[in-house]
Amino acid sequence: MRIGFIGLGAMGQHMAHNLIATGFDVTVWNRSSDKLAPLVEAGATRAVQAADAAACDVLITMLADDDALTTVVDAHDLIEAMPENGVHVNMATCSIECARRMAARHENAGRHYVAAPVLGRPDIAKAAKLNIVAAGDHDAIERARPALEAMGQKVWPAGEAAYKANAIKLATNFMLVSAVEAMGEATSLTSAYGIERADFLEIITNSVFGAPAYLGYSGAMANREYDNPEGFKLALGAKDMDLALAASKAENVPLPVGSTVRDRLSEALAAGDGDLDLAALAEGSRRAAHLDDND
Amino acid sequence: MRIGFIGLGAMGQHMAHNLIATGFDVTVWNRSSDKLAPLVEAGATRAVQAADAAACDVLITMLADDDALTTVVDAHDLIEAMPENGVHVNMATCSIECARRMAARHENAGRHYVAAPVLGRPDIAKAAKLNIVAAGDHDAIERARPALEAMGQKVWPAGEAAYKANAIKLATNFMLVSAVEAMGEATSLTSAYGIERADFLEIITNSVFGAPAYLGYSGAMANREYDNPEGFKLALGAKDMDLALAASKAENVPLPVGSTVRDRLSEALAAGDGDLDLAALAEGSRRAAHLDDND
Amino acid sequence: MRIGFIGLGAMGQHMAHNLIATGFDVTVWNRSSDKLAPLVEAGATRAVQAADAAACDVLITMLADDDALTTVVDAHDLIEAMPENGVHVNMATCSIECARRMAARHENAGRHYVAAPVLGRPDIAKAAKLNIVAAGDHDAIERARPALEAMGQKVWPAGEAAYKANAIKLATNFMLVSAVEAMGEATSLTSAYGIERADFLEIITNSVFGAPAYLGYSGAMANREYDNPEGFKLALGAKDMDLALAASKAENVPLPVGSTVRDRLSEALAAGDGDLDLAALAEGSRRAAHLDDND
Amino acid sequence: MRIGFIGLGAMGQHMAHNLIATGFDVTVWNRSSDKLAPLVEAGATRAVQAADAAACDVLITMLADDDALTTVVDAHDLIEAMPENGVHVNMATCSIECARRMAARHENAGRHYVAAPVLGRPDIAKAAKLNIVAAGDHDAIERARPALEAMGQKVWPAGEAAYKANAIKLATNFMLVSAVEAMGEATSLTSAYGIERADFLEIITNSVFGAPAYLGYSGAMANREYDNPEGFKLALGAKDMDLALAASKAENVPLPVGSTVRDRLSEALAAGDGDLDLAALAEGSRRAAHLDDND
Repeated sequence: MRIGFIGLGAMGQHMAHNLIATGFDVTVWNRSSDKLAPLVEAGATRAVQAADAAACDVLITMLADDDALTTVVDAHDLIEAMPENGVHVNMATCSIECARRMAARHENAGRHYVAAPVLGRPDIAKAAKLNIVAAGDHDAIERARPALEAMGQKVWPAGEAAYKANAIKLATNFMLVSAVEAMGEATSLTSAYGIERADFLEIITNSVFGAPAYLGYSGAMANREYDNPEGFKLALGAKDMDLALAASKAENVPLPVGSTVRDRLSEALAAGDGDLDLAALAEGSRRAAHLDDND
Repeated sequence: MRIGFIGLGAMGQHMAHNLIATGFDVTVWNRSSDKLAPLVEAGATRAVQAADAAACDVLITMLADDDALTTVVDAHDLIEAMPENGVHVNMATCSIECARRMAARHENAGRHYVAAPVLGRPDIAKAAKLNIVAAGDHDAIERARPALEAMGQKVWPAGEAAYKANAIKLATNFMLVSAVEAMGEATSLTSAYGIERADFLEIITNSVFGAPAYLGYSGAMANREYDNPEGFKLALGAKDMDLALAASKAENVPLPVGSTVRDRLSEALAAGDGDLDLAALAEGSRRAAHLDDND
Repeated sequence: MRIGFIGLGAMGQHMAHNLIATGFDVTVWNRSSDKLAPLVEAGATRAVQAADAAACDVLITMLADDDALTTVVDAHDLIEAMPENGVHVNMATCSIECARRMAARHENAGRHYVAAPVLGRPDIAKAAKLNIVAAGDHDAIERARPALEAMGQKVWPAGEAAYKANAIKLATNFMLVSAVEAMGEATSLTSAYGIERADFLEIITNSVFGAPAYLGYSGAMANREYDNPEGFKLALGAKDMDLALAASKAENVPLPVGSTVRDRLSEALAAGDGDLDLAALAEGSRRAAHLDDND
Repeated sequence: MRIGFIGLGAMGQHMAHNLIATGFDVTVWNRSSDKLAPLVEAGATRAVQAADAAACDVLITMLADDDALTTVVDAHDLIEAMPENGVHVNMATCSIECARRMAARHENAGRHYVAAPVLGRPDIAKAAKLNIVAAGDHDAIERARPALEAMGQKVWPAGEAAYKANAIKLATNFMLVSAVEAMGEATSLTSAYGIERADFLEIITNSVFGAPAYLGYSGAMANREYDNPEGFKLALGAKDMDLALAASKAENVPLPVGSTVRDRLSEALAAGDGDLDLAALAEGSRRAAHLDDND
């Protein structure tokens, strides 16, 4: 099976590597070309143009956001470039609205759009341990399944309507960002009572909160070191929270915790922490409590 | 070692049973006497008066709240009834202030007060799998350790000042209640997009949120069945959140997520859901979104 | 001075009437034509096409939102239809971004764009008592001033950059919606203590809260009657709050009260209260407190 | 009519002066005696002991909080010292619970307890322009009315149950503190868009927000000068908000805006701003937005 792969950022490059390592014939394309060399070296074919990737049996995109996806799809007429009945698997996080629009456009053109957003950060992507939530035409998902399984530990079916996978992903990331904020607040509270950050975080992540949502951030929070190239950047957390809140507004589902946390993200972004790991939310909590370096 | 045990509620009865099963000589006392029979049958000694329990090598209390503890301690002169240099281990959740006051009173009387609140619900207590956070005099904790280890899977040290264990417990429960609220909100959001509650909850608890804080509540939330005698009642979650917020105010540590969630607890209590499992927070989210039974 | 007026909704029709009553030569155009008759009867000229309104000395637009404005401006090439150096005064609420874009487009075409959003509801518009916040080229504002003064009690200057007037308007409406929500919460609280709604509202609006932001909503809240054709619809309050939050995110200015209130608006919209007066926020507060009709 | 007055703080001293100025025979007592001299000079009688004030026809207390009231009443047996059928008017803000307890104690002793909390800051007290909300036995209020009218511009009846007046006062102060916080947030938002603080505040307080709740704080906020001996201290705003939240919890009435604002008060207290004017909430908003002195 020939796979086209577009979008070789922090996540995409690991995912493409895993496809190659599994033995797929992978054609890669990226807007900036510096990411291509290591993949070509590993065995990928470098697309002359984006349409070459779209012409494969399965096209996988992993682009930054709605705008990036729409821009690339439109600029290169990717839907038309796909084979008839071809499958486009968008594994990036995008809005409900974008998913609906893309699904309709592909269907109108006789192609398939599968939304298959992933749960996991770059380090998880590298280890091929992603959880993949896939929604779209059943047969289309089955055709893409071998590729998905090469990148993840589990493919979770989410129905025939593509946007449903995005709803699940956005709800999950709303929970994730909220969990990190709550952990930051709790850590400030215990700090104020003289408890070492690392001690508190060790206890909770070895008991009731022993899950990736916490373990992936507690280390950075304990050390107050937030430079993590394989992590989940705070600005991306804010972007996902905005998408979750947009989804909640569209259906009038209140998310009081989400609204509150979005506000804290604004503070962190105003502080210039957008490029830090999401765990840096804990610093905003420290600022609000006016803790000093002895706390 | 002779152990006195006072407070045989949903948690305490399991904990006392585990002490007896491990072979300790346990003297039990309870304000209402109907809880005593099964323990006596299992081998416990029934205290004629509360002071008999206090006179043991280690006194363990597991009473409902600050008031219950203070009332029992005062009404029965328990501190005086303890042997000189005796150890009182309070395993219930109480306020920072109560912990400070109790520690001082015991110290003034030449006794030891250890705060050893537990992480885990009644089913965890029954399985002797509690995580126990213990703070107080080091030797006192060591003397009580065999008993603690009979009730829990791990004893986490939290320093010499008793209140520190309570700060950790309150911060943890703030996170727990917030996590359940966020899970409820996320479930309403995905419901509004046509996703089955159980499907969403299965995905998240088998991936990023696979920890007791979620697994202990996702089942009830999936089924919308909140009668759970071994669970954690919503009203108790509100009580713990109030203690956490009181601790946060005392040190001026903002807890924006906590403040928001406390408000949701008020709605649930107003709805009459206080005696339901904490997972019933999800029903408040459904009410706020005006979801109907088809969602 | 000839004035073109486009947008004859609940606000616009009163404003246009006041211009006619003051003696201006007013040319009116509206997307749906049923609103035109009473104005023509009062002395307005009915534009054959939208461009006729734009060709006047001053073009005033009062359209529902960013989309409506952009659609009308583009569909009828209104900027080109304006006389060279002509003045377009947009008195509707729009986003910061829309204001920036419109100002640039007009400037590029050698025309002037003035943002002059108004404070006040339809009844205030009818009474020509609006407060008008005007930003844009100084001379352009001066040319429009006689018209503005015919519609309002006061013109507040807000500088040369059009978007500044919008920032002021959005910040004001954020405060307004928050004030109404807070008044609703306070009324639920006092109701729960057996105090008549009308009694509480009378006290506060005759003392510390004796201002239009409260007086305009306390009557409806006291009677729990929210059908008010001259009022400010809850759904429009939600729209303005969204614009305020978008403005806050663009500059990373946290608005914790705004985030919280936006969430309450979602509940009210989910309840189907979008077409009611904004005062109906009080009903959401009653629902959350589970007050019954005796409270 | 002889009036006893206990509690000569920032508010009480002005109120007592107004009673003397109106011609009442006023007996004053205060825990610290330095406040007494100017009143004695103005014509007051200095009580030898607190009970002398209680022995008057009407006893007025204006003490800092529940604890201060309870301590003074108990330490000096004030209820017993009152004449049979005497009237005690507590004009300070206190909790619902304290009001209920005091009312019951007075009734049991054959005395009357009237809750008559005031709306207005020290400058309003000085000008005898307070709004007074009075609840309690009708005849008792009528007996005290001449004194109340000497201190305020209006006496608002709130029924026979004393705590109702406190509920109204707490709900009002919840609204007041929330209004100031919202005004601070709005001012930060407009600042971020380059609008002078004073310009924005002038517009809103001369239009939709032209009421004491805003006018009393906008000046300090415009100048960022928060030292105001006649103002309402931020720490007292936090105290009142805590009482409002306690009242809301007791009846399970959610106050989402109140919960959010309480959290912002924590930040301000942590910053050391408790002794500043409540308007200093705006500084917390500036800190959260990371505005600099050019904004």
